[in-house]
Amino acid sequence: MTIRALVWGENVHEQINAIVAENYPKGMHERIAEVLREDANISASTATLQEPEHGLSEARLKETDVLLWWGHRSHGEVADEVVERVAKRVWEGMGLIVLHSAHFSKIFKRLMGSPCALNWREAGERERLWVVNPGHPIAAGLPQHFELEMEEMYGEPFTVPEPLETVFISWFQGGEVFRSGLTYRRGAGNIFYFRPGHETYPTYHQQIVGQVLRNAVNWAYNPGAQAVNIHSAPNRPIEQAIEPITERGPRLHQAGQKGFA
Amino acid sequence: MTIRALVWGENVHEQINAIVAENYPKGMHERIAEVLREDANISASTATLQEPEHGLSEARLKETDVLLWWGHRSHGEVADEVVERVAKRVWEGMGLIVLHSAHFSKIFKRLMGSPCALNWREAGERERLWVVNPGHPIAAGLPQHFELEMEEMYGEPFTVPEPLETVFISWFQGGEVFRSGLTYRRGAGNIFYFRPGHETYPTYHQQIVGQVLRNAVNWAYNPGAQAVNIHSAPNRPIEQAIEPITERGPRLHQAGQKGFA
Amino acid sequence: MTIRALVWGENVHEQINAIVAENYPKGMHERIAEVLREDANISASTATLQEPEHGLSEARLKETDVLLWWGHRSHGEVADEVVERVAKRVWEGMGLIVLHSAHFSKIFKRLMGSPCALNWREAGERERLWVVNPGHPIAAGLPQHFELEMEEMYGEPFTVPEPLETVFISWFQGGEVFRSGLTYRRGAGNIFYFRPGHETYPTYHQQIVGQVLRNAVNWAYNPGAQAVNIHSAPNRPIEQAIEPITERGPRLHQAGQKGFA
Amino acid sequence: MTIRALVWGENVHEQINAIVAENYPKGMHERIAEVLREDANISASTATLQEPEHGLSEARLKETDVLLWWGHRSHGEVADEVVERVAKRVWEGMGLIVLHSAHFSKIFKRLMGSPCALNWREAGERERLWVVNPGHPIAAGLPQHFELEMEEMYGEPFTVPEPLETVFISWFQGGEVFRSGLTYRRGAGNIFYFRPGHETYPTYHQQIVGQVLRNAVNWAYNPGAQAVNIHSAPNRPIEQAIEPITERGPRLHQAGQKGFA
Repeated sequence: MTIRALVWGENVHEQINAIVAENYPKGMHERIAEVLREDANISASTATLQEPEHGLSEARLKETDVLLWWGHRSHGEVADEVVERVAKRVWEGMGLIVLHSAHFSKIFKRLMGSPCALNWREAGERERLWVVNPGHPIAAGLPQHFELEMEEMYGEPFTVPEPLETVFISWFQGGEVFRSGLTYRRGAGNIFYFRPGHETYPTYHQQIVGQVLRNAVNWAYNPGAQAVNIHSAPNRPIEQAIEPITERGPRLHQAGQKGFA
Repeated sequence: MTIRALVWGENVHEQINAIVAENYPKGMHERIAEVLREDANISASTATLQEPEHGLSEARLKETDVLLWWGHRSHGEVADEVVERVAKRVWEGMGLIVLHSAHFSKIFKRLMGSPCALNWREAGERERLWVVNPGHPIAAGLPQHFELEMEEMYGEPFTVPEPLETVFISWFQGGEVFRSGLTYRRGAGNIFYFRPGHETYPTYHQQIVGQVLRNAVNWAYNPGAQAVNIHSAPNRPIEQAIEPITERGPRLHQAGQKGFA
Repeated sequence: MTIRALVWGENVHEQINAIVAENYPKGMHERIAEVLREDANISASTATLQEPEHGLSEARLKETDVLLWWGHRSHGEVADEVVERVAKRVWEGMGLIVLHSAHFSKIFKRLMGSPCALNWREAGERERLWVVNPGHPIAAGLPQHFELEMEEMYGEPFTVPEPLETVFISWFQGGEVFRSGLTYRRGAGNIFYFRPGHETYPTYHQQIVGQVLRNAVNWAYNPGAQAVNIHSAPNRPIEQAIEPITERGPRLHQAGQKGFA
Repeated sequence: MTIRALVWGENVHEQINAIVAENYPKGMHERIAEVLREDANISASTATLQEPEHGLSEARLKETDVLLWWGHRSHGEVADEVVERVAKRVWEGMGLIVLHSAHFSKIFKRLMGSPCALNWREAGERERLWVVNPGHPIAAGLPQHFELEMEEMYGEPFTVPEPLETVFISWFQGGEVFRSGLTYRRGAGNIFYFRPGHETYPTYHQQIVGQVLRNAVNWAYNPGAQAVNIHSAPNRPIEQAIEPITERGPRLHQAGQKGFA
């Protein structure tokens, strides 16, 4: 069993900002893919905003078990059609891992149904992530807490729905806290939001961040999901009712008519 | 304290279907408003699809504490701009009660981020709602179960996110079950989905259904919410950090620069 | 409508520690009751460990809508019989607000079914509580964050079940975080855990802490709950089945026989 | 990787009731173990009430990854000490699958902190389980619904805490519904309650029930959990604070003193 992970990167700051380019000479997406490949069960490839269909064609998504998403400056350039396509695949069972500034990506806001806003500060301050759910698979093998010496601050309130489970909470040097690891399921798809990953810092070069990402891919993988028919609302004809019933009363729909979508 | 409820009705089948017109001569929205007015703490008015801005102007929504939504045939005719406006008000604290076939309304799908699909059958069969959460305020004063002798069947799987709490589960004569009462919060807004209410049956004339709706309006009312600034992601300047910190490391944003939305 | 709150205090450190006695000359329980009485809808009385039945007789609990619990040194001296009695009342709909070191009280551990452990440090350090759920009734009227200049530190992991909702998260000067406001329902009873309240600091003299407690009492109050029969597993005789059924197959229990408890 | 499952059976009705003995000649626990062994990744053994320490010694539990529990008549005969030992192991990460009438077992009530009551009827009626969460690993490979032609009825309200997720809901011929598959985590331990399994019917001989049990064992297995220190509340000495702090203010505990348990 190999988990087919696809790392999507916006790939903009790498091209225009010297610091980011130095941090991630092959792009953030390539670095994240490298990190995933340290797990022999994961095969990781990449896609970027600049490719046709942003590298997220129907065919490509069908071959993807878990999609990771990093974006920041160019959320607005992602085509709505591609966003809907990704959402549909998540509902059908593809895992989705949303990284850092992708809290404001179209796909995350689409799946959360809430503003996904927060407060922020870029000061290279210390972030400490606490494992608040030590039994969760995404925390497997981690210490009670770990530090990122320089990170962008994200502060509460983070306007997302109450998660299934909270895995990490961050402490920031400047006085804020943030729920840094949150799990959701939408349809058959597992979703994990993971906060760290500001592009001007070497976050994805830290060994422990890689461990979290590999754990998250393994957790999000949902091999049993085959919920390909969850999008429509099919009629169950009266004569095929599981328990025999007789039609009664007035009726709006004619037999065989489709529902209103 | 009076709760300002606004009942939004699609108001289409009442105009074109004799059975629905007979059931609800003033429209379903007017009947639901009447039912709410039995609670002296609720003032209920109505709005319909056909009014300018569907009766949901900025000003009108600002004066609304809890919005109830019934739609079926014409979900697609609701303007996207109005849907976004309603979503924004929910995030700011307006309650929303979603009725029956409005599971497929744009506003419910927008706030859930999932397909909201189900299976259905129109056979006038018996539905029995069981209170599975007897301590929930929406179940106050209700018996353990109650029947609707003729209703449309909705069957699982209902592809919505795991709710905060499940209040009702329905048994159907033809062999199905359905989670008929589900609570959510999105931003500061309380959301309740309530299943019954097919337009060809006299559901909103049943006393106990009215009790559920009145309970739900009282539950969804959120007087303390003033979350008017939850949509944006403001920067917290370094020099105003609560705990004094010194800027370090590389920087992407210039001082005073806005974030990427 | 008046909410009948009962503040239970261990009342031990007030008697043997000069600092605590000076902080709370009438006892912590009396101070907390005073704070609640600032809300005209709340009538607050007190009970202590030293009273017969710890002041928590059947009759007293029946007249209580919301119970607040502060204990620290003497958890082990609370009679098991009283703990079960309180648990039963919570299941029937009495609210319960668990304060600070009562995370290790018998009643909280009884209702959570988990260790309720944490890490701690008594250094008079600064605690900052962030409102992570600004639409929750317990956060009504509060600012985005507030400070307690000197408090005991409690650090994650806090081994409690995933809550219904997280309302507050604390930042500590020494580097830790803690989920400081958590909601649960057990049976029909609403439960709120609120972290601050170390006895050597003037926490319950802070205006904003009082606001949280008054909000919590209003939130926990559950007037509709009458779940007095939730403790047993009654048989529903075959001949009284709602939908007519005919007995079939082998049978373990004889008609009229009670189940195994 | 092999998952070490241990099936605990009360083993009472098999000895005294001819119908149960005929259904399960080697005992229900042996039949359940057989069913698990159809998954090559599971090694299943058994333990019963009658063995010393009910077959649940410290050593035995240490070698157990997932414990399955079936009991009915003799819940009261399980030693409290063993119940606490099992609870402790669950908190440390052992999975627990609670079957049918074990809703009233000491261990389930201990971990839920609620009455775990329900309504019941033994009439050999038809039960239909609906998969309401098709993407959940416990539902992998299952059809949308499946029937047990003769089962005992369990009816709502089922007084358990709101679960992490609801996987199955049952429809009963006599008019009731029941949440038949519920997930929880307590400490690091995954818990699944599965409703079917009345001893006078051939439930554990049905292929699809076996599929659910095997899925549940795989889901509950938590190899990464090593939360062996979650039971106590350790002090973090001031001089070892992660962020340097200076002690201030009054103090209740002396340096090196233990907390109150």
